[in-house]
Amino acid sequence: MSGLRFERVSFEQRTPGRGTWDITERVQELVSESAVRSGQCTVFVHHTSASLVICENADPEVRRDLERIMARLVPDGDPVFRHTAEGADDMPAHVRTILTQSSLTIPIAGGRCDLGNWQGLYLWEHRHAPHRRRITLTILGVA
Amino acid sequence: MSGLRFERVSFEQRTPGRGTWDITERVQELVSESAVRSGQCTVFVHHTSASLVICENADPEVRRDLERIMARLVPDGDPVFRHTAEGADDMPAHVRTILTQSSLTIPIAGGRCDLGNWQGLYLWEHRHAPHRRRITLTILGVA
Amino acid sequence: MSGLRFERVSFEQRTPGRGTWDITERVQELVSESAVRSGQCTVFVHHTSASLVICENADPEVRRDLERIMARLVPDGDPVFRHTAEGADDMPAHVRTILTQSSLTIPIAGGRCDLGNWQGLYLWEHRHAPHRRRITLTILGVA
Repeated sequence: MSGLRFERVSFEQRTPGRGTWDITERVQELVSESAVRSGQCTVFVHHTSASLVICENADPEVRRDLERIMARLVPDGDPVFRHTAEGADDMPAHVRTILTQSSLTIPIAGGRCDLGNWQGLYLWEHRHAPHRRRITLTILGVA
Repeated sequence: MSGLRFERVSFEQRTPGRGTWDITERVQELVSESAVRSGQCTVFVHHTSASLVICENADPEVRRDLERIMARLVPDGDPVFRHTAEGADDMPAHVRTILTQSSLTIPIAGGRCDLGNWQGLYLWEHRHAPHRRRITLTILGVA
Repeated sequence: MSGLRFERVSFEQRTPGRGTWDITERVQELVSESAVRSGQCTVFVHHTSASLVICENADPEVRRDLERIMARLVPDGDPVFRHTAEGADDMPAHVRTILTQSSLTIPIAGGRCDLGNWQGLYLWEHRHAPHRRRITLTILGVA
């Protein structure tokens, strides 16, 4: 199949503090506005203290449980950390980012990301302070 | 280099229960049946309780060790979890998925995924009950 | 947008032992030498004991902290591991690889990987002995 198209588009997501923010609809809108009907979409976050996850989208308790287990694996203020310039959540934010994802690639079918029924796309802010996070989509495929 | 091609193909993998299931040959077959000789293949799993890993392919003990370390990091029935609707392995399955991968992108050379000698592709089922998992390949490149 | 181009290029990175090795400039050079001005670059490492991370690039203490937290989560010589043929760092190297990344996809803008200000690309060697690691870039996009 030939006639491939490529589009690149960025958006900003405001995060009021630590937690997971649903970006599924924003991504789906941008994909549906592109010319690509069958292809793939890569989501990339341009930061080292916020990351991307594909997570169950039905019960918000799942994402609160994610916070609880991550707080045990990589606690704020852990004495193992020496890079503490920006506070107790600074280094844990970098580790959480590395244990999850900075980029995700999802198939496009019928002009939409072909996510499973229970798959949502989330930006996971790891800092407690509010931030504005830049996200870029690269979309490749055929019309 | 021009003349790019794109193909998208899905398949189903049955999983009898928790464990890693080798999908390397299935993926290699689908890539070799495509028109792409040089390019890249993205593997995507459409679920939040099963994930993808690239793992050592020679000694099956490696994948049993993976289960052992994950059982310690994110134990079934851990009291930290409140989302327990589907049982003690419900929330650990979501966490294990997020700590590993939902998508992997591999170079294609000579019409095959250019994996290292010891790299195998595995679907990691995190639930104890049998499931059928949908996987999609998106293949991009030149003939 | 049409006229897509694809390029695939590999390089070797020597690693004197466990630690993170900055590959940002090497990757940026290869991207800038390609014909692609707007697109995406996927970085892939062909091994199961070395991985890729996007990490804060300003304070080297961040990457030493990464080693410290990983040494606690997945210690060398942990008695849970039975695959110990190549030593105490053999199985931890596989687990560290799986908890981080074998592939990363980054947008290209203006002929360069569009990394955030604080994002660096690192090859994380998980073995203590020196190795030579093969890395492949697949570059897709428009001129």
